[in-house]
Amino acid sequence: MDKPYSIGVDLGGTNLRVAVVARDGRIVEKIKISTCAEVIDHLIGSIERLFSDEINGIGLAIAGVMNVDSRRITSCPNIRLLEDMHIVDIIENKFKVPVFLENDAYAATLGESVAGVGKGFDSFVLLTLGTGIGGGVIYNGSPLKIAAELGHIIVETGGRRCGCGSLGCLEAYTSARAMIEAATEGIKGGRDSAMRGHIEAGADGIQPADIYRYAIEGDAFAMEILKTAGRYLGSGIASFINIFSPQAVILTGGLTGAWDIYLQEAIRWASENAFKELYAKTQIIRSSLGDDAGLIGAACLTFEHK
Amino acid sequence: MDKPYSIGVDLGGTNLRVAVVARDGRIVEKIKISTCAEVIDHLIGSIERLFSDEINGIGLAIAGVMNVDSRRITSCPNIRLLEDMHIVDIIENKFKVPVFLENDAYAATLGESVAGVGKGFDSFVLLTLGTGIGGGVIYNGSPLKIAAELGHIIVETGGRRCGCGSLGCLEAYTSARAMIEAATEGIKGGRDSAMRGHIEAGADGIQPADIYRYAIEGDAFAMEILKTAGRYLGSGIASFINIFSPQAVILTGGLTGAWDIYLQEAIRWASENAFKELYAKTQIIRSSLGDDAGLIGAACLTFEHK
Repeated sequence: MDKPYSIGVDLGGTNLRVAVVARDGRIVEKIKISTCAEVIDHLIGSIERLFSDEINGIGLAIAGVMNVDSRRITSCPNIRLLEDMHIVDIIENKFKVPVFLENDAYAATLGESVAGVGKGFDSFVLLTLGTGIGGGVIYNGSPLKIAAELGHIIVETGGRRCGCGSLGCLEAYTSARAMIEAATEGIKGGRDSAMRGHIEAGADGIQPADIYRYAIEGDAFAMEILKTAGRYLGSGIASFINIFSPQAVILTGGLTGAWDIYLQEAIRWASENAFKELYAKTQIIRSSLGDDAGLIGAACLTFEHK
Repeated sequence: MDKPYSIGVDLGGTNLRVAVVARDGRIVEKIKISTCAEVIDHLIGSIERLFSDEINGIGLAIAGVMNVDSRRITSCPNIRLLEDMHIVDIIENKFKVPVFLENDAYAATLGESVAGVGKGFDSFVLLTLGTGIGGGVIYNGSPLKIAAELGHIIVETGGRRCGCGSLGCLEAYTSARAMIEAATEGIKGGRDSAMRGHIEAGADGIQPADIYRYAIEGDAFAMEILKTAGRYLGSGIASFINIFSPQAVILTGGLTGAWDIYLQEAIRWASENAFKELYAKTQIIRSSLGDDAGLIGAACLTFEHK
């Protein structure tokens, strides 16, 4: 295993992404395809285009549930096809290099640690803030092999029902989905807000980016939604700081884009609800890799990063 | 470092405990002294009584905040004297063997892993349920060196003020102190309960053991206090399962004694609010070492347990 490059595959989102990645985490070449019926053909085709003698191995990051040892995907909501096939064996037999499989949050954490802002830290917690909430934990320079379902810690006992079935999960209060639900339910319940027209007119409903826009334009209900989501996120961050005493909490995902209201409230709340001496040692920062963290981490599965 | 025994010292509770411990975690001889003005003399005297040529080293477990590297105790509420002295250096200079320092929750976790029910597990979360809530995490057979302030994850955002200053910590809802406060406040607030006479008469106030007794005698308010505390504990356990996917959650401390109501409700709530597939793989069990876990773990700091 001493060739200079690996291929990383990220099947985490609505797009399939394949890239050649160097040992230092640098992306050399990248292909992006929207997932569709022919996704498996496209996946194999993309790897074929990028493959060479210098490729060390191939890493797959999947949004779903898998058995890393038997290398089978048990559940992959974005690409159901993968549940019925031995994709790892198929790729390995075709390309004759080692193929590794991990979930996308684990891969993103590894990627952030090898090539992102996480490079400077021996220990950090990564939180992906999007439709759902996920993450991973770096400890002593390596990702902990734990479930790390960080969006499913309970921040409100007996609270809002989460998509996972439990009550009061972090994700049920801080995800994009949670914000959209809060806006839609509030308007239905008669809340006075400039968002009413948008929600009642739009077939697509309202998005977090819209809520943010209404908030900075002065809409009190939009502001309340973002600040409430921020406070719950702050509770989660405080809990992770008190558990892991990490050097950093790194935030990534769609919701970090322009969310000074949401993240500012989260950081304020975390600072008030974590142990002072632990909070003081923790930097709360944004990811530098954004969408590419999973892709880079997938490729890095094949190198021997400590 | 190949002598067969170590001395463990546990300064975690209201008693000072010193013991000779074998490599397998077996206690050979134990001394227990109540902490008092002469505690340092008693500590040195106890070690002297137990010391021999066969002692490998001495480990100290302390309830407090310390700097493990500089081996100084920054805060020790039970024995304030320790904050102003170089206790590790004093003991090391006197007995001429290596002396190690750790907090009592870390030591209890290590002890449970070496000699308790934790011996059978590669990964577990230990929760100490008493006046406060603490714990530790075993991962890949060793304790994680993280803050593990497991009593201070937030289970109710913006909720009850905890002793640590934050709002809504697990400890603020599930500890002995929380139960006593809930009973006392409820009675003051006019709740109808057989506990009223007890609380209004007793100079010592009511204890969790009393609340438990009133509950099994049919007092509805006492039952409600235990079940509420149990539900919050269940939220905490569900969060730890979703984060760490441990093989076991091991419960120890005073509140586990006869608390079938409290723990039964906690386990029910955890089963409903953790990921089903992770919960199914986790055993929730009682510690087998009880008070001795910290003592054994302190001694084990001096052996090279992986």
